[in-house]
Amino acid sequence: MAQQTFFEISMSLDGYVAGPNADLDNPLGVGGEALHEWVFPLEAWRKEHGEKGGETNASTLVLEEALGRTGAHVMGRRMYSSGEGPWVDDPKADGWWGDEPPFHKPVFVVTHHEREPLTLGETTFSFVTDGVESALAQAGEAAGEKDVMISGGAAVGQQAIAAGRVDDLLIHLAPVYLGGGVRLFENLGDDPRFEQTDAVAAPGVTHLMYRPVR
Amino acid sequence: MAQQTFFEISMSLDGYVAGPNADLDNPLGVGGEALHEWVFPLEAWRKEHGEKGGETNASTLVLEEALGRTGAHVMGRRMYSSGEGPWVDDPKADGWWGDEPPFHKPVFVVTHHEREPLTLGETTFSFVTDGVESALAQAGEAAGEKDVMISGGAAVGQQAIAAGRVDDLLIHLAPVYLGGGVRLFENLGDDPRFEQTDAVAAPGVTHLMYRPVR
Repeated sequence: MAQQTFFEISMSLDGYVAGPNADLDNPLGVGGEALHEWVFPLEAWRKEHGEKGGETNASTLVLEEALGRTGAHVMGRRMYSSGEGPWVDDPKADGWWGDEPPFHKPVFVVTHHEREPLTLGETTFSFVTDGVESALAQAGEAAGEKDVMISGGAAVGQQAIAAGRVDDLLIHLAPVYLGGGVRLFENLGDDPRFEQTDAVAAPGVTHLMYRPVR
Repeated sequence: MAQQTFFEISMSLDGYVAGPNADLDNPLGVGGEALHEWVFPLEAWRKEHGEKGGETNASTLVLEEALGRTGAHVMGRRMYSSGEGPWVDDPKADGWWGDEPPFHKPVFVVTHHEREPLTLGETTFSFVTDGVESALAQAGEAAGEKDVMISGGAAVGQQAIAAGRVDDLLIHLAPVYLGGGVRLFENLGDDPRFEQTDAVAAPGVTHLMYRPVR
């Protein structure tokens, strides 16, 4: 099967992928951590973060499948927190993922600031200054036979959808109301359309898979 | 089990329960019909509308369970189309549900206009002018041992959730992008919270069940 690009993100019931007023102390916005509560207890997640133990439930297969197909990641600068925008010059901004980032795969960060690649543990971050499509192309090459995961945030995924470059959209719908923040379904270009390809109910989350169609 | 009140509604991926620019020719707003495409082919739905044939799929059980537990309906004036607001004096406004409405149960319409009850086929519409809670109380009495279904629109359901009067929220999440219209998750009062109680994947829709918690 040809290489695919998929965009994976957790969303609140009211359609937000981050809460309001995001800053360094609240990187996911007020209340945004709750979007990811479903994943923290999972053994499959803890393992990637170097932790032992944890649960196995209906989310496990979804997570393992997503991780298993991934050969490289693309993410936005805020998700990498490379010290731009409101966080320029903040010394905490580079410590985001720690010395052992959980990716264990090449990561391509879309940014406006040129920078040398940075290797932390098993993860090498490369900084791409010529846009999402270039990052996707570089990640596609790095991924080899595997797929490219767009790991967020919203803007990078939206640009990729608008450019017709997303084959699968995997939404982890959390039973959370945020009341404000960053919406997923906007800036998607003209007349975006989606086909539902899968849905999996799991404790505290529903995993929804869509295929953008043009 | 004590009587429950549940709110059932179809929602788009981007969180709308009706498209933009609703009027008599486009009662669900531009594109809004697509929210309900999952239900039209179902035998269980066609039967309620006096039509023969149709499909059985994973949505059938969800629909039959919802209809089976329902002893009475509460709905807003626009869903009933009782001739208010922008539709005042429009002679088409009363013809909405035809001579054989699909409810076959008492329906309580929340409206500002007093009006005598109207019986069409097996369905009697009663018009309640003193608010959602009064309509819910009257429907509760009419439903007997069964439950009360809030059938929409958004405003009536939102008021009921804000008042702590909804036990179950059943969302039919359609793989549709509307880009505007009437949002479900707003006007819900302070700090609304939800627990996910069930989720069922079906062709062209995912059925999501939540319990509002206070």
